[in-house]
Amino acid sequence: MSELTESVTRMIKEFEKLPGVGKKSAERIAYYLLKVEKKEALALADAIYGVKENVRYCKHCFNLTEQELCEICRDPNRNQTTLCVVEQPRDLIALEQTGRYNGLYHILLGRIAPLDKIGPDQLTIAALVERIKTGSFTEIVMATNPTIEGDSTALYIIKQLESVPVFPKITRLARGITTGSDLQFANKEMLADALAERQSFR
Amino acid sequence: MSELTESVTRMIKEFEKLPGVGKKSAERIAYYLLKVEKKEALALADAIYGVKENVRYCKHCFNLTEQELCEICRDPNRNQTTLCVVEQPRDLIALEQTGRYNGLYHILLGRIAPLDKIGPDQLTIAALVERIKTGSFTEIVMATNPTIEGDSTALYIIKQLESVPVFPKITRLARGITTGSDLQFANKEMLADALAERQSFR
Repeated sequence: MSELTESVTRMIKEFEKLPGVGKKSAERIAYYLLKVEKKEALALADAIYGVKENVRYCKHCFNLTEQELCEICRDPNRNQTTLCVVEQPRDLIALEQTGRYNGLYHILLGRIAPLDKIGPDQLTIAALVERIKTGSFTEIVMATNPTIEGDSTALYIIKQLESVPVFPKITRLARGITTGSDLQFANKEMLADALAERQSFR
Repeated sequence: MSELTESVTRMIKEFEKLPGVGKKSAERIAYYLLKVEKKEALALADAIYGVKENVRYCKHCFNLTEQELCEICRDPNRNQTTLCVVEQPRDLIALEQTGRYNGLYHILLGRIAPLDKIGPDQLTIAALVERIKTGSFTEIVMATNPTIEGDSTALYIIKQLESVPVFPKITRLARGITTGSDLQFANKEMLADALAERQSFR
């Protein structure tokens, strides 16, 4: 690849680091950026700068924000007594898109994953415990991912909350078969959950 | 998506413009860039700046370069009497990777494509004709893509060369079946080319 200039080679290498971008895609993107107007290519570079300069974590809930508090924490119409604990900002977005939750959130910024060397200290669990201790939440919805790591993280957090004087109700998202799915394709765990948590027919 | 900040939304939009990057991939890249160290994310932005600030087209052949002339044009060991005409810098790279060509190149920066509103004037054809007129090339290898547009572009160029006093030999890349392929999967055009241009068995 000595025929590509140093700058282009460097740019391709940087693009290759992105998730889902392989060597070929990175090259294709490089040719595209070489071709487009300087203004257009620099708009991408500036957007990256914009994010890294302006975006930070909400002081309360660790959601993404460009101010001290995020949109949700600033909204006085949100139910201040319910707190939903999620792993990542994208989980918050998914829940918000349902339009069925009006409480507050707490983003852990990950899950406890010993294999990836991620312990409780690298998450925002201490801040969460403090928030619950000093706040007046009546319900904590544990919405970590329905995986072994997500469940373990939720259990770890519940353990930490034992010292909280006024213990709030702790719930988790319902598990079962998914709307629109087909029983024959459901796996054992899914069906076991669905049976164990069966609901009264309305 | 009001839960993502303005900067993040803007960055996702910019990534979506890249070839092969859809909405989901752009979001995934955005979460990645939010997570990594500021230094690492800005390295990508700076690499894009680097390319748009430093990379230009070679004054002779329109290859990419960070100097006035590209590596190949600067190399005195290249055969100065053979000129290979390609559509894009990436075609030059593909040919260079074979290690079987030692002449010079001319990059058209595209092909004549009326449907895409690309006419001869948007390519480097005038510069190519001038180069052949004033140079001492004995062979011009037309290595435009083996497509209708690539072939038409080559024919157009040959037509323009009629005014050149000392007319060089004009060749094109051999067409036929591809090494390692299977006859049953070859299409009609491929087999017709292979039959018409059949070579003596060595």
